Amino acid sequence: MKKNKLNQDWTAIWRKGHTVFIIDQTKLPFNVEIVELQSCIETANAIKNMLLRGAGTIGVAAGYAMAQAFAEYSNEQELQKAKLFIESSRPTAQNLFYATNRVYEEARNAENPEKRAFETADQILHEDEKNSRIMGEFGAELIQDGFNILTHCNAGKLAIQGWGSALAPVYMAHEQGKDIFVYADETRPRLQGAQITAWELQQAGIPHAIIVDNAAGFYMLQRKIDIVFVGADRIAYNGDVANKIGTYEKAVLSKENNIPFYVVAPCSTIDFSCSCGVNIPIEERSSDEVKKFRNVLIANPESDALNPAFDITPAKYITGIITEKGIHKPEDIHSLK
Amino acid sequence: MKKNKLNQDWTAIWRKGHTVFIIDQTKLPFNVEIVELQSCIETANAIKNMLLRGAGTIGVAAGYAMAQAFAEYSNEQELQKAKLFIESSRPTAQNLFYATNRVYEEARNAENPEKRAFETADQILHEDEKNSRIMGEFGAELIQDGFNILTHCNAGKLAIQGWGSALAPVYMAHEQGKDIFVYADETRPRLQGAQITAWELQQAGIPHAIIVDNAAGFYMLQRKIDIVFVGADRIAYNGDVANKIGTYEKAVLSKENNIPFYVVAPCSTIDFSCSCGVNIPIEERSSDEVKKFRNVLIANPESDALNPAFDITPAKYITGIITEKGIHKPEDIHSLK
Repeated sequence: MKKNKLNQDWTAIWRKGHTVFIIDQTKLPFNVEIVELQSCIETANAIKNMLLRGAGTIGVAAGYAMAQAFAEYSNEQELQKAKLFIESSRPTAQNLFYATNRVYEEARNAENPEKRAFETADQILHEDEKNSRIMGEFGAELIQDGFNILTHCNAGKLAIQGWGSALAPVYMAHEQGKDIFVYADETRPRLQGAQITAWELQQAGIPHAIIVDNAAGFYMLQRKIDIVFVGADRIAYNGDVANKIGTYEKAVLSKENNIPFYVVAPCSTIDFSCSCGVNIPIEERSSDEVKKFRNVLIANPESDALNPAFDITPAKYITGIITEKGIHKPEDIHSLK
Repeated sequence: MKKNKLNQDWTAIWRKGHTVFIIDQTKLPFNVEIVELQSCIETANAIKNMLLRGAGTIGVAAGYAMAQAFAEYSNEQELQKAKLFIESSRPTAQNLFYATNRVYEEARNAENPEKRAFETADQILHEDEKNSRIMGEFGAELIQDGFNILTHCNAGKLAIQGWGSALAPVYMAHEQGKDIFVYADETRPRLQGAQITAWELQQAGIPHAIIVDNAAGFYMLQRKIDIVFVGADRIAYNGDVANKIGTYEKAVLSKENNIPFYVVAPCSTIDFSCSCGVNIPIEERSSDEVKKFRNVLIANPESDALNPAFDITPAKYITGIITEKGIHKPEDIHSLK
């Protein structure tokens, strides 16, 4: 196993000049490999092929890809084309569109578009980092000493700069010295929980165990889970939340068992133009993600598989949405506009 | 891939003389391999190591193992020891205890214990087969033309002789010419849905797709699932049901979405001595089932995993329990005693 040494301050994405550096998340937890992305197309393809993932990291990468486009192209038409190419990489993530639009708008009329574009993308990264810490502070207030916490997928440091979103309260509670334990849903089909969240928690020394997605309800019914934190890929005006497939199931089960269910996401994840969840496009990914693991078949070869990557959790199942501005009732999220 | 040809009348388990034959379910769907079990210990180990699984098939195998013990041992003490050994193979399955007790009681005072033991085990197999068809008939009445059906784990021909339990209504509806579609939960960690249910449905030419367990709720919320059928490993006096981990989650989601949720199981699965679900022991299996696939790590190596094999679905989430005696409300199941 190739192992790059990471210090405690490791981040998922950074840049030097026009080059973007990322941890290749498809190689985790087995190898820590750094990939250099030299062009807009390379960065957009890294988003598409999920070398990086997570709402915030996708947003920052999209911002850098847009900035790289400003370095590579000068005419409006080429820039527009590049912008569309970046935006076609992952259709569900709100932060992606937020970042490309913001970099594009800030840079297009600037004196030095290229410089301004990179600075704007840097700014998005730094804002994410700052917001993550603030969300962590708000969320940690909900975590009592001795709490058992459930999380689904990965919404940690690899997903959003700083401490992530869903894991920010967990990191903060741990830093505050609270005795906590995390159940990490493995998160089929791509196993971000088993592979990435578990790796992150181990790096931070936070006690945890991986469970199959099927087992979360079992532990809820046994009163072994005190609170649930998940991230979000997009939040609609009415408080409905698009997040990793399976989030809806955990939300319904939390409500049924009177367990507080919190969505943690920066305001940049809110899509105020989207009235409700049914209007959020759901990416259908390749059936190979379900049927194969590292190119080895794990399912009946002759059967089809369906693979929706996200689901919609209606606002009524969500106890609260934690942003950098505070803890909100989902039905109040529109007031943040 | 080694492929044994199976005809349409294939079964999961059968015997010739004192030898028990099974399809090695750990090799499916990639290879169809027949294993011969020559002794009580071999058969009990096949149960323990899950070369065969499914409540009915475990019961029949346990019955045959008990009969093999009668062929191998003659004194009471050795037979009792063999019985305990068989019963230690899988602690949750009610059919296992039903079969060992029945074979033991019938044979111990018979003129020819060995002959009587094998005949009794045969009888359990034939009763399962008959009951399966009857359960299929009852269940198929609930399936309308055009229905989309969800099932979890495998409770088909490999699990119970005949047509299985949960899949019996599906096979029957298909035979009746109804246009049906089955969503098969892949059923982590052991993937019985993706590997075995999908294989069975393909063999029978029943349209279906594999989904990750996380996606069932997504399709329920979209009104794409009309009815749910699952099997059972043990049913308590009050109608609580122990079944494959994840069953409870699907039951809660079904209720929340007003989708009928049926448990299909022969009366032999009911444990009248067990007052309610919390008294059913839940088998905790190796964390390797979660962390590895065919000995390849798929999770963070340094993280622990928890692996409860079953969960308890409280009676209130179950629309009905289908046995060979009819369709019952879960709270009425005790009246079948």
